[in-house]
Amino acid sequence: MHGTIQPVSRLVEAFARLPGIGPKSAQRLTFYLLRAPVEASRELADALIQMRENVIFCSLCFNITSEDPCDACTDARRDRSIICVVEEPLDVLALERTRGYRGLYHVLHGALSPIEGIGPDDLKITPLLARLRDGTVKEVILATNPNVEGDTTAQYLTQLIRPLGISTSRIARGLPVGGDLEYADEVTLAQAMENRRMV
Amino acid sequence: MHGTIQPVSRLVEAFARLPGIGPKSAQRLTFYLLRAPVEASRELADALIQMRENVIFCSLCFNITSEDPCDACTDARRDRSIICVVEEPLDVLALERTRGYRGLYHVLHGALSPIEGIGPDDLKITPLLARLRDGTVKEVILATNPNVEGDTTAQYLTQLIRPLGISTSRIARGLPVGGDLEYADEVTLAQAMENRRMV
Repeated sequence: MHGTIQPVSRLVEAFARLPGIGPKSAQRLTFYLLRAPVEASRELADALIQMRENVIFCSLCFNITSEDPCDACTDARRDRSIICVVEEPLDVLALERTRGYRGLYHVLHGALSPIEGIGPDDLKITPLLARLRDGTVKEVILATNPNVEGDTTAQYLTQLIRPLGISTSRIARGLPVGGDLEYADEVTLAQAMENRRMV
Repeated sequence: MHGTIQPVSRLVEAFARLPGIGPKSAQRLTFYLLRAPVEASRELADALIQMRENVIFCSLCFNITSEDPCDACTDARRDRSIICVVEEPLDVLALERTRGYRGLYHVLHGALSPIEGIGPDDLKITPLLARLRDGTVKEVILATNPNVEGDTTAQYLTQLIRPLGISTSRIARGLPVGGDLEYADEVTLAQAMENRRMV
């Protein structure tokens, strides 16, 4: 019977290794999939492989891409004097949908959070500062989420970037406080970009 | 950029379809795996496929097995006059580890829970009653978890089984109330089986 339980235990352990999923949840998920149609497990497995095989991070802006550097970083029509800093790749997609921004991006991959133990070294901050050294960039738009972590991160980056003689702006508070950038509607997001203020 | 986001969105959606995982959690899990070593995604994907390809349910006792009927149901050395009813396949494994029980098993695949909307038709109760009809079984040990749902399920089954002239017993309260059968230590579990009382 141990031979039969092994594949089950293995999946329980694999789920339990994911953040925010404890042993009980991992077991519940495993038996849910064992009882669900086989397609549910196949789709999840295939989605996992497809993502890891086809998605990489741009070595310049750290957005998700299929080729390095990404389309945005190599697009000659984009304004290279302005960089919009966001927390996650999905935030870039949300901003692109507004069609109102034509500059470059930089994905931090998170926000500063003392509670979750996320510090500057856990974010793509050093590579951002490296991009600012050649003097091409004149303005950095801090489009981190309008919540405590996002504001803290924006303030931290402002202190690092302003001494470089580069303007920093914060995406306007057109977004609901405590909200999440990627779920904002396009008009609100476009206005928030338009109404950004120098800081 | 939509071409790049598609594999990411697909995985977010696949995670979001799992019970207890909302869109935000699904996104957090997806980006965690995107940043983690590729092995993490491969292991989870492979564990999913391996489990669904190698594990099926026994058509008699509904325990997990690689062949139907399972080893326990076909083992001639087991006492076919007694059936131990449990909630989950892992409970069978826990009882087997005690080496104190040599009867048959029946896995309900859950417990009655009005709050979660889990009723008798959601559990393997009808097939259990079918197994009791030929008069071979003399006693049914109700080894559902020692919590509200487990007790409710045991009481419900007692009302259905006793009229058939079959003894029903409840696994002894050697287990911590509110606890979970599969995590009990072997001695406690063995004693709980030994001290079962007729109900």
